[in-house]
Amino acid sequence: MLIMGIDPGIAISGYGLISCENSGCRILEYGVIKTSAGLETPQRLRQIHEGYLSLIERYKPDAVAIEELFFNKNAKTIITVGQARGAALLAAALSNIEVFEYTPLQVKQAVVGYGRADKHQVQQMIKIYFQLDNLPKPDDAADALAVAVCHMNSYKLGKIFDSRGF
Amino acid sequence: MLIMGIDPGIAISGYGLISCENSGCRILEYGVIKTSAGLETPQRLRQIHEGYLSLIERYKPDAVAIEELFFNKNAKTIITVGQARGAALLAAALSNIEVFEYTPLQVKQAVVGYGRADKHQVQQMIKIYFQLDNLPKPDDAADALAVAVCHMNSYKLGKIFDSRGF
Repeated sequence: MLIMGIDPGIAISGYGLISCENSGCRILEYGVIKTSAGLETPQRLRQIHEGYLSLIERYKPDAVAIEELFFNKNAKTIITVGQARGAALLAAALSNIEVFEYTPLQVKQAVVGYGRADKHQVQQMIKIYFQLDNLPKPDDAADALAVAVCHMNSYKLGKIFDSRGF
Repeated sequence: MLIMGIDPGIAISGYGLISCENSGCRILEYGVIKTSAGLETPQRLRQIHEGYLSLIERYKPDAVAIEELFFNKNAKTIITVGQARGAALLAAALSNIEVFEYTPLQVKQAVVGYGRADKHQVQQMIKIYFQLDNLPKPDDAADALAVAVCHMNSYKLGKIFDSRGF
């Protein structure tokens, strides 16, 4: 199963593509889509959208996983991130790929086993999980990998429940 | 000049297409794009996006005008509207149409001449402005027409300033 985790933002949007089989998961690619502050918002949204679209076309993921937004940021930030998130979600919807949403708590618990983990702990666990030589950077890319792992775990758990007839 | 005003929302997104010449403006079409609450968010964003895209393809507007978002709504509403707004802005960006943003205050002042006008007053002024037989409904469509008119006024004002060498 191929999963694309995404962590959208207007300036930096993270992505992480992982491939999972019974033997485990491996990273295919991770990184960020950057947009320039000098551009108008619609053009920045276009770059985000087309960035995710081109990753989807290249890797043809089976699922997209994304974090639900925090509500404790200021309203202007929320609108900006909401718009970027819309551009990312649209890339999945136009490609007919199912989207799964997880709360930040779910993602941290899945990756670190602890809901209040900080960004550095998430990076460290992703490094160990995938046996990387270095910390995955920047944060946004590590977070995208983390939400992809969260989806994989939740999918595996679902299959165990199914096979036990829950 | 052909202007498309838009008032995006996740359930109901308004649009208003107006054509303006020296003799004045007339409405080409107005209405709303509705999405079903039973659909997942990415699918609803897709319907909004494709709805605006198809209007752009049909009418080929010279400009898209949109209201800036209120900041006084609750965070969950802001994210939802932000995502819908992203889907709408992307339709303009992918079609290479310039987007102009106006605050609610600017729109109301342009249409009603009074920044604290309510939705009913906006509908009434739009009815008079375009010599309609009935109030334009729903609110979302009337608001989309209002922001289109606001853009037209701001454009005319800009031309007057230009011609006077300001």
